[in-house]
Amino acid sequence: VSVVRRRRCAILGASGYIGQHFARLLAEHPWFEPVVLTSTERSKGRTLGDVWLLPEEIPDTLARARLTTATPRELRRAGIEVAFSALPSGKAGTIETALAKKGIPVFSNASDHRMDRDVPLLVPEVNADHLDLLTARPGGRAAIVNNPNCTAAGLVVGLAPIVPLLDPVRVYVATYQALSGAGVPGVPSLHIADNVVPFIADEEEKVAAESLRMLRSARPRDARPVRMEVVAQCARVAVRDGHLEAVTIEARRRPSLPEIRAAWTGFDPLALWDLPTAPRPPIELRSEPDRPQPLRDRWAGSPRRARGMAVTIGRVRWDPPLLRFFLLSHNAVRGGAGGSVLNAELALRAGWLGHPVGRPPS
Amino acid sequence: VSVVRRRRCAILGASGYIGQHFARLLAEHPWFEPVVLTSTERSKGRTLGDVWLLPEEIPDTLARARLTTATPRELRRAGIEVAFSALPSGKAGTIETALAKKGIPVFSNASDHRMDRDVPLLVPEVNADHLDLLTARPGGRAAIVNNPNCTAAGLVVGLAPIVPLLDPVRVYVATYQALSGAGVPGVPSLHIADNVVPFIADEEEKVAAESLRMLRSARPRDARPVRMEVVAQCARVAVRDGHLEAVTIEARRRPSLPEIRAAWTGFDPLALWDLPTAPRPPIELRSEPDRPQPLRDRWAGSPRRARGMAVTIGRVRWDPPLLRFFLLSHNAVRGGAGGSVLNAELALRAGWLGHPVGRPPS
Amino acid sequence: VSVVRRRRCAILGASGYIGQHFARLLAEHPWFEPVVLTSTERSKGRTLGDVWLLPEEIPDTLARARLTTATPRELRRAGIEVAFSALPSGKAGTIETALAKKGIPVFSNASDHRMDRDVPLLVPEVNADHLDLLTARPGGRAAIVNNPNCTAAGLVVGLAPIVPLLDPVRVYVATYQALSGAGVPGVPSLHIADNVVPFIADEEEKVAAESLRMLRSARPRDARPVRMEVVAQCARVAVRDGHLEAVTIEARRRPSLPEIRAAWTGFDPLALWDLPTAPRPPIELRSEPDRPQPLRDRWAGSPRRARGMAVTIGRVRWDPPLLRFFLLSHNAVRGGAGGSVLNAELALRAGWLGHPVGRPPS
Amino acid sequence: VSVVRRRRCAILGASGYIGQHFARLLAEHPWFEPVVLTSTERSKGRTLGDVWLLPEEIPDTLARARLTTATPRELRRAGIEVAFSALPSGKAGTIETALAKKGIPVFSNASDHRMDRDVPLLVPEVNADHLDLLTARPGGRAAIVNNPNCTAAGLVVGLAPIVPLLDPVRVYVATYQALSGAGVPGVPSLHIADNVVPFIADEEEKVAAESLRMLRSARPRDARPVRMEVVAQCARVAVRDGHLEAVTIEARRRPSLPEIRAAWTGFDPLALWDLPTAPRPPIELRSEPDRPQPLRDRWAGSPRRARGMAVTIGRVRWDPPLLRFFLLSHNAVRGGAGGSVLNAELALRAGWLGHPVGRPPS
Repeated sequence: VSVVRRRRCAILGASGYIGQHFARLLAEHPWFEPVVLTSTERSKGRTLGDVWLLPEEIPDTLARARLTTATPRELRRAGIEVAFSALPSGKAGTIETALAKKGIPVFSNASDHRMDRDVPLLVPEVNADHLDLLTARPGGRAAIVNNPNCTAAGLVVGLAPIVPLLDPVRVYVATYQALSGAGVPGVPSLHIADNVVPFIADEEEKVAAESLRMLRSARPRDARPVRMEVVAQCARVAVRDGHLEAVTIEARRRPSLPEIRAAWTGFDPLALWDLPTAPRPPIELRSEPDRPQPLRDRWAGSPRRARGMAVTIGRVRWDPPLLRFFLLSHNAVRGGAGGSVLNAELALRAGWLGHPVGRPPS
Repeated sequence: VSVVRRRRCAILGASGYIGQHFARLLAEHPWFEPVVLTSTERSKGRTLGDVWLLPEEIPDTLARARLTTATPRELRRAGIEVAFSALPSGKAGTIETALAKKGIPVFSNASDHRMDRDVPLLVPEVNADHLDLLTARPGGRAAIVNNPNCTAAGLVVGLAPIVPLLDPVRVYVATYQALSGAGVPGVPSLHIADNVVPFIADEEEKVAAESLRMLRSARPRDARPVRMEVVAQCARVAVRDGHLEAVTIEARRRPSLPEIRAAWTGFDPLALWDLPTAPRPPIELRSEPDRPQPLRDRWAGSPRRARGMAVTIGRVRWDPPLLRFFLLSHNAVRGGAGGSVLNAELALRAGWLGHPVGRPPS
Repeated sequence: VSVVRRRRCAILGASGYIGQHFARLLAEHPWFEPVVLTSTERSKGRTLGDVWLLPEEIPDTLARARLTTATPRELRRAGIEVAFSALPSGKAGTIETALAKKGIPVFSNASDHRMDRDVPLLVPEVNADHLDLLTARPGGRAAIVNNPNCTAAGLVVGLAPIVPLLDPVRVYVATYQALSGAGVPGVPSLHIADNVVPFIADEEEKVAAESLRMLRSARPRDARPVRMEVVAQCARVAVRDGHLEAVTIEARRRPSLPEIRAAWTGFDPLALWDLPTAPRPPIELRSEPDRPQPLRDRWAGSPRRARGMAVTIGRVRWDPPLLRFFLLSHNAVRGGAGGSVLNAELALRAGWLGHPVGRPPS
Repeated sequence: VSVVRRRRCAILGASGYIGQHFARLLAEHPWFEPVVLTSTERSKGRTLGDVWLLPEEIPDTLARARLTTATPRELRRAGIEVAFSALPSGKAGTIETALAKKGIPVFSNASDHRMDRDVPLLVPEVNADHLDLLTARPGGRAAIVNNPNCTAAGLVVGLAPIVPLLDPVRVYVATYQALSGAGVPGVPSLHIADNVVPFIADEEEKVAAESLRMLRSARPRDARPVRMEVVAQCARVAVRDGHLEAVTIEARRRPSLPEIRAAWTGFDPLALWDLPTAPRPPIELRSEPDRPQPLRDRWAGSPRRARGMAVTIGRVRWDPPLLRFFLLSHNAVRGGAGGSVLNAELALRAGWLGHPVGRPPS
């Protein structure tokens, strides 16, 4: 792969949890170079080091970068070519639209545009072709591309290879979601210490709707449509990072267990794309009786740059018509910043961001 | 109710977590008087105070009671009329059988006999008539009566009133189980701090089998048999006490939501029995968006003696044919010692332990 | 003790953590009757049940009480005779002064007036005579009486009986402070999960200054002045309730260890006062090698009404001139609402709130 | 530095927590090559991957290494040149002695020999010359070299540069120790969830004795002897890794605060040695108000190989004669396996393990 140059990018909402994961992932990214970090008025002028929240190390190259409150117009003037949005849902929508109108494509973690008809809701391993939605846009306009909700992000990676095999009636999901999903200040410690909270606002609806949108768009020309439901129950547990999901599928078809396992282990749709943040393989199947676990598996993913991007699956039990398993993914990486970075890599490689990088797969 | 005298009872395995909950519940019980506490050789001769594990206060009257290693024969000689067993599963079976043969009825939390054909697996609110199994026993023999697995115990209370209404195809349960379910030493802190462990040995099988056994026995003469499956996924979370369960039911029938709620709130099958440890009502239905929670709801239950015996249900969502809710019960009280105490109360009141206490309900 | 009637009282800031402990302690108090609960504009009109934060049960009698935003004048008109203040420090000062000027005595947990010369900083077991400061006030004015900082509150109870014996040079304290000390939202869960935070704003200064003020005022006519320093290092740990303190004293005198232990166990300065919330004894000395522990000892204190008011001391090691021990007290009860309730009881009993209750000790 | 070859080494007790940190640190070590991993009979024949406990990734090169129960004789025959001991204290002593007699030098984390007169108790930054004790041994015998207790290890690094400046009377230490200090199974989760346990067997004695032994041996020819006490209070908190220590020093001398800070920041006694696992600098001084924190600072240390080896100091307050600060170090790295690896590097470099590596500093 020959990369002519790193695209100048902005991280919007860089003082928050997802924003800082963007900073961590982009600081030494081969294709993108973060040159503007925005935040709210409150943090303006402080360095990224001053507001660093993550237990992971701050990247040296960004520790002294100053937070700004640049407008879309100022970002345009600053020569920003790509924006990564970690803006809070609710506030993100209008800013992202404004940027797109100014010709700056936005890769967003916010939920505002996720269900918009002309916005790809993208997990590259699952529905890479969803980028084609962008062709529907009138010529001059740039794009908004969304990564999904943090729970849906891991789920669809686990479902994508087996949905065609199983033709599910329903997918039942109960979640054990990490604290970082709510950011900082997020969940007060007195709410969650020695406790589980069986409620996360709008989460169950998002998981259902976004998962279906992605799985359906994954197979546009497929003879058999996705005719299933996703039924979620979501709870918050006292874990720092890593969403665990208990998944039970009622299937219409009855493949063998080895076929199911092979569908997961052989799943590698990005094999030819050579994207820097793509985990290879995207699914790690564990055979131990007690995995996946947030503590041990949240950073799954290789190569090194793709740590936290793999989805781990374990405890697979197949009693037709029911398939049960546990699935884990890092909510702030695969389910957040890393998802959008991977989306941007796919978009760049596929030629959506000006010049394609290297040669796209045939 | 007139109670002639407190029955002399033994607590088997009194040094463990469930054993100590037995001590707490029986110390000042109106119908039972703990006079012997047994333990392993290792703790023999120490006082209950020396080995006290619970954060709850030790009852004054038992703090100086000495732990013994009495045999069934010695318990017989000591005039023990009832035994409460918190013996570890695996070791409990033969001891409990020996006691029953000596004529001492055993109310057990151990799993060894739970699926025996002639042993009632009893949750009084659910299948009080299961005690009738004891009539099948040859005359001289006393009884073993089991409370179920800690997860199944809460679940069946929540299901009992709605199963006839919904006629479920399947009940899907994902659990968030507390540390005390594994006792002490139990779960090493390094296994669970900042983590969830999606595995508890044999738990999913027990939840399914025991729940069905109880629900089926609940309705022996009913025209419509229970024709459903229970499908469980069990995980351990870093919570001290209180098992939370995410329940999704696929129903064959479509009652209204008010009918479902009324079935729960009107459920009070022990109303006439006047059992000291029976929570009235047995189910507390919460309307807040984020309940039940282990921290806030594990001690639900009134009157005071029945704290920890009520089952709390919340977040009820009815999208026919799917009913979703969260359910919580105190695993060591409702799902452990308290369950067996309530079983013994029912047995005594119903005349199975010699003389009936007061008048049984007509 | 004959109590003519319960004094009508207001709880200021009743929607917060300390405010709700006031509600819990006063709901069925024999001498005080909470008739007004105030909160900020935001919670106005909601019931106490709507905003209940504590894992402890809400008192039935207050669950439906509505929160108001009553001014001092309105409280006066409502016939309020005593106010308990759980207002946030910083905002509390002017409101408390206004109430006192209106003739309503205020028992406050806020820090604003703690170091005011004419405001008693009171822990009844330690410096009951500090109430005499009130005599200095011009006739018509009512009083503000403060309980100290939550860490200092437990510390001075543990120090009071031994300071005269040891004549300390310095008291070194390192703290392990609970989450509830910061209220809700308080400490974000992502700041403290799997962590210790070695900083609590202004805490070390308060512990030193307030402890000395109380210990000095405890012995006004004593020949030997308190000539010691208090040196604190304060940290927050992931514990819900209960401040643990590692105390090391460098002593000038060398009593025997039995003398030291006897000073603690024999300490009962409120023996004659018959105050409802006074723990008897105020200090519980543990001999186990691993106590006190927040989980097990935070609710120490009898009778029942005084749960959480006793200070637990353990691991006493005396290597002259150094005395080491650990000390624990419930930060929100002894170190918060309970402290002020006890102060009000003392004040009422001593005749400062109109008519004395019963007969004061001679 | 030219290294001819990697020394063949054994890791004793490789299935435990410290043993696995040895494996992690040595797997790709430039000077040592782990070729034998021993464990108890119970784990014999299993792979390191089968028993892996750490949340950190297992090194690829050792994942399939089989655990053995090799005797000292067998280790000798296998050509083992160096042994790293993570054996449990109590059992370690005789095995380590046997190995040393067979001519295999042992770098040990066990406490058995730490206070032996002819065994160096070594922290290279503090008392590198303690290795000279080995010259006292009769010619043929190899060495045992110990790293200290996990709490003392960090403490002495923090004290070494300032003890000469301050000439302390006493060092008061209160600790907040991590769960991994007790290994697995170690602390039961029910003992520590929502709790602090103010007791760790023998810990306070070890911290005092070992710290003094090291600090005294650090300055053998110094005019002014170390005439101070170390006074510890040790507690366990619910943190996975990283011992935090609240340190208060009573000083005889009064340097300026900048002098104290400079002593820490300028401390780099291993600058010339070029040891692979030496953190440079060994002390990281933080200026934020709320650092060090276990979560954020336990992995301090650069270069990459030295992660977890630096000691972090913060919240420095100097009110002569009292210096207060918090100090943090990774108990299982700096205070465990990493300490012994650094010891072995120093010994090798200094010529104690056959041929010196490269040129020793002049």
